[in-house]
Amino acid sequence: MSSKINLRDLKSAKKRREFLEKQLNISLVNTGQIDVAANVENLIGTTQIPLGVAGPLLIHLEGVKTHLRGVLHYIPLATTEGALVASVSRGCKAVTEAGGASVFVENIGITRGPVFKTKNLSESIKTKLWIEVNFQNLAKVAASTSSHLKLLKADYQVVGRNLFVRFYFDTADAMGMNMATIATQEAIDLIEKKTGAKCVSISGNFCIDKKPAWLNFISGRGKRVWAEVTLSKKILKDVLKTTPENIAEVVYRKCLLGSIMSGSLGFNGHYANIIAAIFAATGQDLAHTVEGSMGVTTAEVLENGDLYFSIYLPSLIVGTVGGGTNLPTQQEALKIMQAEGAEEFATVVGGAVLAGELSLIASLSEGSLVKAHQTLGRKGK
Amino acid sequence: MSSKINLRDLKSAKKRREFLEKQLNISLVNTGQIDVAANVENLIGTTQIPLGVAGPLLIHLEGVKTHLRGVLHYIPLATTEGALVASVSRGCKAVTEAGGASVFVENIGITRGPVFKTKNLSESIKTKLWIEVNFQNLAKVAASTSSHLKLLKADYQVVGRNLFVRFYFDTADAMGMNMATIATQEAIDLIEKKTGAKCVSISGNFCIDKKPAWLNFISGRGKRVWAEVTLSKKILKDVLKTTPENIAEVVYRKCLLGSIMSGSLGFNGHYANIIAAIFAATGQDLAHTVEGSMGVTTAEVLENGDLYFSIYLPSLIVGTVGGGTNLPTQQEALKIMQAEGAEEFATVVGGAVLAGELSLIASLSEGSLVKAHQTLGRKGK
Amino acid sequence: MSSKINLRDLKSAKKRREFLEKQLNISLVNTGQIDVAANVENLIGTTQIPLGVAGPLLIHLEGVKTHLRGVLHYIPLATTEGALVASVSRGCKAVTEAGGASVFVENIGITRGPVFKTKNLSESIKTKLWIEVNFQNLAKVAASTSSHLKLLKADYQVVGRNLFVRFYFDTADAMGMNMATIATQEAIDLIEKKTGAKCVSISGNFCIDKKPAWLNFISGRGKRVWAEVTLSKKILKDVLKTTPENIAEVVYRKCLLGSIMSGSLGFNGHYANIIAAIFAATGQDLAHTVEGSMGVTTAEVLENGDLYFSIYLPSLIVGTVGGGTNLPTQQEALKIMQAEGAEEFATVVGGAVLAGELSLIASLSEGSLVKAHQTLGRKGK
Amino acid sequence: MSSKINLRDLKSAKKRREFLEKQLNISLVNTGQIDVAANVENLIGTTQIPLGVAGPLLIHLEGVKTHLRGVLHYIPLATTEGALVASVSRGCKAVTEAGGASVFVENIGITRGPVFKTKNLSESIKTKLWIEVNFQNLAKVAASTSSHLKLLKADYQVVGRNLFVRFYFDTADAMGMNMATIATQEAIDLIEKKTGAKCVSISGNFCIDKKPAWLNFISGRGKRVWAEVTLSKKILKDVLKTTPENIAEVVYRKCLLGSIMSGSLGFNGHYANIIAAIFAATGQDLAHTVEGSMGVTTAEVLENGDLYFSIYLPSLIVGTVGGGTNLPTQQEALKIMQAEGAEEFATVVGGAVLAGELSLIASLSEGSLVKAHQTLGRKGK
Repeated sequence: MSSKINLRDLKSAKKRREFLEKQLNISLVNTGQIDVAANVENLIGTTQIPLGVAGPLLIHLEGVKTHLRGVLHYIPLATTEGALVASVSRGCKAVTEAGGASVFVENIGITRGPVFKTKNLSESIKTKLWIEVNFQNLAKVAASTSSHLKLLKADYQVVGRNLFVRFYFDTADAMGMNMATIATQEAIDLIEKKTGAKCVSISGNFCIDKKPAWLNFISGRGKRVWAEVTLSKKILKDVLKTTPENIAEVVYRKCLLGSIMSGSLGFNGHYANIIAAIFAATGQDLAHTVEGSMGVTTAEVLENGDLYFSIYLPSLIVGTVGGGTNLPTQQEALKIMQAEGAEEFATVVGGAVLAGELSLIASLSEGSLVKAHQTLGRKGK
Repeated sequence: MSSKINLRDLKSAKKRREFLEKQLNISLVNTGQIDVAANVENLIGTTQIPLGVAGPLLIHLEGVKTHLRGVLHYIPLATTEGALVASVSRGCKAVTEAGGASVFVENIGITRGPVFKTKNLSESIKTKLWIEVNFQNLAKVAASTSSHLKLLKADYQVVGRNLFVRFYFDTADAMGMNMATIATQEAIDLIEKKTGAKCVSISGNFCIDKKPAWLNFISGRGKRVWAEVTLSKKILKDVLKTTPENIAEVVYRKCLLGSIMSGSLGFNGHYANIIAAIFAATGQDLAHTVEGSMGVTTAEVLENGDLYFSIYLPSLIVGTVGGGTNLPTQQEALKIMQAEGAEEFATVVGGAVLAGELSLIASLSEGSLVKAHQTLGRKGK
Repeated sequence: MSSKINLRDLKSAKKRREFLEKQLNISLVNTGQIDVAANVENLIGTTQIPLGVAGPLLIHLEGVKTHLRGVLHYIPLATTEGALVASVSRGCKAVTEAGGASVFVENIGITRGPVFKTKNLSESIKTKLWIEVNFQNLAKVAASTSSHLKLLKADYQVVGRNLFVRFYFDTADAMGMNMATIATQEAIDLIEKKTGAKCVSISGNFCIDKKPAWLNFISGRGKRVWAEVTLSKKILKDVLKTTPENIAEVVYRKCLLGSIMSGSLGFNGHYANIIAAIFAATGQDLAHTVEGSMGVTTAEVLENGDLYFSIYLPSLIVGTVGGGTNLPTQQEALKIMQAEGAEEFATVVGGAVLAGELSLIASLSEGSLVKAHQTLGRKGK
Repeated sequence: MSSKINLRDLKSAKKRREFLEKQLNISLVNTGQIDVAANVENLIGTTQIPLGVAGPLLIHLEGVKTHLRGVLHYIPLATTEGALVASVSRGCKAVTEAGGASVFVENIGITRGPVFKTKNLSESIKTKLWIEVNFQNLAKVAASTSSHLKLLKADYQVVGRNLFVRFYFDTADAMGMNMATIATQEAIDLIEKKTGAKCVSISGNFCIDKKPAWLNFISGRGKRVWAEVTLSKKILKDVLKTTPENIAEVVYRKCLLGSIMSGSLGFNGHYANIIAAIFAATGQDLAHTVEGSMGVTTAEVLENGDLYFSIYLPSLIVGTVGGGTNLPTQQEALKIMQAEGAEEFATVVGGAVLAGELSLIASLSEGSLVKAHQTLGRKGK
């Protein structure tokens, strides 16, 4: 086989499939069943992932301005794991019977963090001061690139001949990395022109995108989401076959102590499972599952014997317009969720994570995980 | 809407779609285009993700036993991001022209890490000793659950009334979390019977699964994969429009210093992008993108002016049998990769990550990222 | 021996020594050589630590307001390690010959971070909002506890039924933890009175004091200190027996890559050695050596062949009044440093760390560390 | 002042003091009160730190081979903080009345972690294999440098053109960094001779010494120490003025959740305070306070209402011979502790940390910390 073979020279997905089928002696009949119009290069068709639906889940969006009570949501989950949809559904049932999930969302903004190379500390610090003083100018330049984008604030780190700047942007209902990158380029051009600093990389990993990082855990990125529910002993027994004490013990020994002993940034059971499945279903960027795996679950037995249960996602990166959200099945999944805009979308994700987390912890607390796996063929937690 | 509505009562995907369409006043025509037989509950159809193909990429599998040279591979990438396939393809071209990627794979094994509750430190430590002494018995019990599974070793942490045990399993070509869970349950039953310890959770987050964690970075999990290539100035200029010095500078300031300043476990540009796209295409567990985001890129200008470039994935969790790999389009994507078994699969992933990483860093180093985004509509990095 | 023996019943250091000498059949003649008046309970005398002096070191204090050039400083180092003083002195010589250390100090403020227990997320978030709205009142209450203290700002984290607040205080030239604690208690009293929240612990480890933590690395605590120097090939050869290339290589492979592979927060050679020795000499809190061990060393070969070398301390906790600084030998050591106030003190520490770090990296880069250890009996690095 | 002034040219501490007194116009009368013979360069006298004694504390050394019950120990604490000795003493009283501290020590060994530069991954991996195959030879070479040293095992990390090796040594009762460094040099010489690899730095920060790091937390370094005690409600009330529930709540919200929210490696109250004070008193390396600040405190209310309380130190670096332990007052402090050898010394440190931690958490749990600070002038926690 020659390295000169170039799929780009073949002008249609069908031609590329035929080429690969012949070249590799394989069949791509399933991949070719559906042809989507997508801005992906060297298209050969579509990957089909089974889509299940969990719910309904009663969610209350809490907030300073908004306070929506009593909306039922279905959760679309694209997954290849048996048991995940059933487990989230079971959690939805328990949460809904307990009065629903209370969810809080804080819009931190998407970030882009370039690194500037300078001559020395003095220039690093002066460049930082220049940005602080001229922040409104930079905001104006940034805003000129899109009517949907607003520069919110900046964080900084100086080390030797390096200045790292973390720009935070409001990008309305878009996830916004693309917008943020374009706006950051404009800001960089101005900074380079006005100071001696030279941008070495528009992404200096101070964003920090698609990598686990304490900076995102501590400062937040995208949206911060909290969700909680209080459940009676009866609901826990009837729906989840467990007790408040057992749930609290698993969260304490596994999610807190176990994650501590592992040096983790994820103090939870399996946020990533639910987030990956919703992200795949709704056209989010799958690599942002990484940020969604961070966060803290708490469980406490209250004085009256009820269970308080909460989840916290410090960095949920989502959007409801642009990118993969425009694709046909992804659009339909978004409609299943009944979420208007990115904040409501984040709210439903928060509720779904609460439900899915509760259900897994309940399974673990009463030892039925293996049984569920054996019956439903689920692979991992 | 009543919380009593239960999708599980509807016995076919079609019925569930019809119910949701009516209930939510939406159309699910695209979701319903393809019905797959999958062990996912409450199925309503399939999510379709555009599939592009990058490559060909010349890969050399290096190893103590194996040494495969000169095989060209195509990389299937299921993604909704414009520019990703083009970028990985560009990297494949550069790497292939430079003589190919040398890839090394170490099979660490999948892990499951239960937490045992004990009376006190003395019992925690005694239980640990019991497991060490009786390790062969536990291995026998574990092996009895599957002919494809072998218990390799165990790590431990004792803290107060808790014993954490991390069992490592060889699960042949399967990703193996399900197998590992079933085998671990058998081991737990024996440990509980023979010692006073009580297992609180079969997963005590000492596994640690689908959460970023230093334990997996340091001890490895699944497979450890390294890949490298040495490129001449000419190839960098012709194919990637950059220089060895510029690449080395971006890796130093972004991947090392930038990630340090962010408190990250990912000292790289965008491993997660490539891994998420391959995982989606080939039926891997998408939540394992989390582990795949960790790792270290290095770039060094050699004495002769060439560029040495490498990637390192401490924890790549993959399989070529079981789970989502059995689905129709996923099977076809696996065949596109021409990888026999999990080790070869990990090898091709390593090569693809090398190519995709090189291409992104090259773009960043010569400032073309924004342009690529604007042209091809890519969202994030 | 009875557990009823209580040293507190013995009213003088001499009596306690005599009691222990008899009880344990030991001699405490050296411990009793000097009796200090100190607010330490159950005093039995003094520990004597050898005090060496490094320097002189030329330091330039850079800053927006201040710009002090050309001051020579001596560095008092209380240590039991052979080779440390000689090594720092050697670094001082190189730095001074190269034109001196440029040091930058940013006053972040000392922090105290209580944890409040609430009923639920709603109350956690409301309590946070109450603090934000009433910040000026809290600042007033805090200021009422000391004329030397000013509340600067607050950071927050909400998780489930917990609100963590991190109060930052300017405490003038005092290290200030005691002042900050007293002021925080007043703030807590007001918060508890006005909101439903209950403070569970005045230190909720969100301070975070005397523990390594990314929060302090990222947000800074106490003082942030940067220092740099540019050295010619000649000085490196004459004074440090090495080359710019060798230094840069050790910093890259050890301080960056090595610390990355270890999951560290200290990307340096041995900041802690210099900080511990200065802290012991000058009456700082020795446990704050922990914060001082974090930080990043950079080394780059410039185009003209010179070496750029810098250190960065994100969290240096120091004071020049109060606590151990009042003790007789500690007062004298402070005078040796010729630093007026905490900011200048931090400046000299920064310069000393730069010099000591450079010297160690130089030793490592030319393989003389073992020789130095064998000759001078130094234990560790 | 000229940079040519060199304290090394002055041949006695007295002459150096006189020089500094004249040069800086200061008095060093207290510093000069005691002249010690120490292998510290540029000696000018001694720093005097107040020495208090806490205890007695009943300690049981638990272990596979040893089981010492019923020994009372005093704890020497060199500190400038008011309240620390009183607080530890109070903890000793509670622990002793509750039956004493049960302490477990595991000897991990001191480590030295060089970094080797190679041509490529293939050479990195081959060098690693060479070391594994020739480990017994390396152990022989290492042992030839000291009759007190034994090479135990090695850990590895490969990344690109770098091989990191972490050698673990048993160094008997010495802390051992110096011995380990000399032995590692011999091993390096052999490795370089037999393989193509070149050691860039004998310390590649894979040791990792005097820097906080997950590697030491996870793999241990020096000694791992656990200690526990179970206390009745009555003792908690009588001695510590608090309740089991209050202690458990502070540990949960502060030491676990608070440290999680801070991205810390120290899940405790103030291990560093006790460790720094014992280290200063007994001639340990003060910079090793850094490692001693890591670790996990647990507190659980038992079914009978008692409190279970434990501490865990994953990396305690101590010795009872060599280095600062030979100094006069340090020798006396070691004798106060009545610990024979490094393992018993680590045991008493573990007991002291348990007592001091319990006492602080108790203070926090009943809100008396501020009062104690105001009365006794203590600075920090």
